[in-house]
Amino acid sequence: MAKKIITVSRQFGSGGRTIAKELAKRLDYDYYDKEIIESVAEKTGFSEQFIAEKGERSPGKTIFSYGFDTGSMMPGVMYGMSANDYIWTEQSKFIRQIADSGKPCVIVGRSADYILREYDDVLNAFICADMEFRKKRVVEIYGETDVKPEKRIADKDKRRALNHKFFTDLEWGFAPNYDICLNSGKIGLERCVDILEELAR
Amino acid sequence: MAKKIITVSRQFGSGGRTIAKELAKRLDYDYYDKEIIESVAEKTGFSEQFIAEKGERSPGKTIFSYGFDTGSMMPGVMYGMSANDYIWTEQSKFIRQIADSGKPCVIVGRSADYILREYDDVLNAFICADMEFRKKRVVEIYGETDVKPEKRIADKDKRRALNHKFFTDLEWGFAPNYDICLNSGKIGLERCVDILEELAR
Repeated sequence: MAKKIITVSRQFGSGGRTIAKELAKRLDYDYYDKEIIESVAEKTGFSEQFIAEKGERSPGKTIFSYGFDTGSMMPGVMYGMSANDYIWTEQSKFIRQIADSGKPCVIVGRSADYILREYDDVLNAFICADMEFRKKRVVEIYGETDVKPEKRIADKDKRRALNHKFFTDLEWGFAPNYDICLNSGKIGLERCVDILEELAR
Repeated sequence: MAKKIITVSRQFGSGGRTIAKELAKRLDYDYYDKEIIESVAEKTGFSEQFIAEKGERSPGKTIFSYGFDTGSMMPGVMYGMSANDYIWTEQSKFIRQIADSGKPCVIVGRSADYILREYDDVLNAFICADMEFRKKRVVEIYGETDVKPEKRIADKDKRRALNHKFFTDLEWGFAPNYDICLNSGKIGLERCVDILEELAR
């Protein structure tokens, strides 16, 4: 049975986003990642960059809660709900709306695999790669910064893992939580797309 | 580049062994799992069943050490080495011998992915599946016992994970530790073989 929704979770610098984009193109599916953020941003009045950052920041008590002054800033926010909770709730709603629309799509990140766990026609993929491959890619794509690429990668992955764990209670990157996991550094990005395309059809 | 060695790690009841066997057949590669155990058993004089059990029993201080009386039972065993350490050392040697022989092969379990981490032409696969799929399969293949299938599966997986962690310091089933991970329950055993065959060639 053809899979109408493909979720792509990925380690930072693994090329998961590139794979997802190419996959959507080949299958002629809608593609979502930044779009989701923008949509949420539009609803909440949060700045787009703020949401992009918060969306990958680990939640919990160590993070400053924005709940206390949400009354005026964010219409519809429950009193005491942290910015992260609010983003999660809005993103989840939006992702389910996409799924319910019935239009086939590829969704990158945002724990969409978990959010759509009750849906039947979903293929959940996880893309990873070795540190050397990712270091090279991160510098190529995002450029050099003062922070070493290893550190940037480790930070980003840690945030994604913590965020995922907090909201889903599942281990990010643990194979049994996905349908297929591919090492893009070993297999190659093009071939990853081939395999996913084949599986989706 | 064709992969000469394919290691298959797997959750209990996921059909990983069946996939590995079929893959070896299609590729005309040698196939190892019980063979490794037998070979070690032959060298050590350990009973085959004892090694099969120990090979998946979690190591460490909670397990009775056989080291104290190895002098007479197991020639070549270092004084104080536990049975698990000994089995690990002998299996590792044997797995490297297989790899060094240059004959293409599929190796199931035994942390062969870690043991052969320095080798270039290895493809490391992990096969998993949902609990419902595995419960059904375990009863079909191994029959009913007094212990419920969920419990048998959880125990076996826990032992494999602990054993792997103890000897390799790596998380068993964590996607970035493999080249490809497949959910056989979702993808189907036959299709898993197709994908691995395609990747290996």
